[in-house]
Amino acid sequence: MSNTSTSSAGKTRWYIADAYLPSCGRGETWEGHESVCVLNVGAADATLDFILYFDGREPIEIKGLKLPARSNRHIGMHKPEMLGGVEVPRDVPYGIEVASDQPVIVQYSRLDVTQPNFTLMTTIPYAE
Amino acid sequence: MSNTSTSSAGKTRWYIADAYLPSCGRGETWEGHESVCVLNVGAADATLDFILYFDGREPIEIKGLKLPARSNRHIGMHKPEMLGGVEVPRDVPYGIEVASDQPVIVQYSRLDVTQPNFTLMTTIPYAE
Amino acid sequence: MSNTSTSSAGKTRWYIADAYLPSCGRGETWEGHESVCVLNVGAADATLDFILYFDGREPIEIKGLKLPARSNRHIGMHKPEMLGGVEVPRDVPYGIEVASDQPVIVQYSRLDVTQPNFTLMTTIPYAE
Amino acid sequence: MSNTSTSSAGKTRWYIADAYLPSCGRGETWEGHESVCVLNVGAADATLDFILYFDGREPIEIKGLKLPARSNRHIGMHKPEMLGGVEVPRDVPYGIEVASDQPVIVQYSRLDVTQPNFTLMTTIPYAE
Repeated sequence: MSNTSTSSAGKTRWYIADAYLPSCGRGETWEGHESVCVLNVGAADATLDFILYFDGREPIEIKGLKLPARSNRHIGMHKPEMLGGVEVPRDVPYGIEVASDQPVIVQYSRLDVTQPNFTLMTTIPYAE
Repeated sequence: MSNTSTSSAGKTRWYIADAYLPSCGRGETWEGHESVCVLNVGAADATLDFILYFDGREPIEIKGLKLPARSNRHIGMHKPEMLGGVEVPRDVPYGIEVASDQPVIVQYSRLDVTQPNFTLMTTIPYAE
Repeated sequence: MSNTSTSSAGKTRWYIADAYLPSCGRGETWEGHESVCVLNVGAADATLDFILYFDGREPIEIKGLKLPARSNRHIGMHKPEMLGGVEVPRDVPYGIEVASDQPVIVQYSRLDVTQPNFTLMTTIPYAE
Repeated sequence: MSNTSTSSAGKTRWYIADAYLPSCGRGETWEGHESVCVLNVGAADATLDFILYFDGREPIEIKGLKLPARSNRHIGMHKPEMLGGVEVPRDVPYGIEVASDQPVIVQYSRLDVTQPNFTLMTTIPYAE
């Protein structure tokens, strides 16, 4: 008998307070980027909305991103094709709210090649 | 219909046990620094107080930092102009308590260029 | 009298949304890898099952990994001998669900030498 | 009126599943190390016990570390003088349980200079 679960898990609201998409990056293999990685272990497809918050400018909304049941996607904030066509401004500090209609698990990671070496950081965002 | 939320979220007390502001740093693009990144998704402006705790010296208080409703700010601990004029001592291990009169979300990140390459670390602090 | 505890601690379900096993890596000392580090402070041996979730391919299950009581193991996702013989695909974004029949504590870390320097990231996964 | 708090905060049990003290490191400024950073915002001094857990060897206990009220200490696992004289084995994966008689906040960080560049990682451990 297995002790693995196929039921849903996670939260429906996630908050990333340190987001930043660098314009510079002389990486050999990768350009600098950041990813909002989303894991849906449930049996229902999830629909995700993002709100981007800034210092001194209006929030930007990204709506209706789909994540199939029992799948994982690393959503690159530098890839408009993964963001319903939205271009995230570069070199601007911001924060991200992720809202989902199904419980999901989010992890935020950044790969920076500015100097030009390669550094990674990751965290599980705050969830409610 | 959207599943995004405009109500407040977060906590009012956040605790960073590993803070450190390096004096050295030969970065090409950035000097070494650390940031307390704060996201306020609520409809009310927030007022933040910081207490810095040390090993063998008295705590330092920074009071009355403002963060507007529905905005995000990356507060650089190396920028007295973002800290009500307080100069944080460099090369000294310390910890930070962030208290807010509104629920907010905090993330702590450090960029270090000591050696002289570029490395990042980030985490969501402990909250109550 | 000691204030340390020998009772169990932790959770039985852990979720890592950003997993990735790089194929490249010219490290001097280490090859690039990622580890699911598991701490069992309880008096009972634990049995762990992993489910790997992908974008556009079926999940992979890894079953019956053993972790003795009062021990710690850093499970390398690049080591089939620690994964019941399963070879994790390289260069593919994925997510990991860890299920345990006993409470355990999990931490996820990645060491990347792609460029070819050495960078680390770590986080405590989401748990339920 | 201030909204800062002087009451205690935190937890009394913290668990780090990925600890590792490298023997190698050709750092210009720092040797490779890891730190268990502890923040005590309360009015009472705290006494800390550590248990180190391994894969295939018995746990090691470190007892009676003191942390004054309203202070912060970055406890270097490479410094026997901060660990009651205990020498932590190098190049061995392990995990750490931190038990405190007062609520405290813990953050775990590692600085690695193996290759020989400089990389940082940090996380808030799991707490109960």
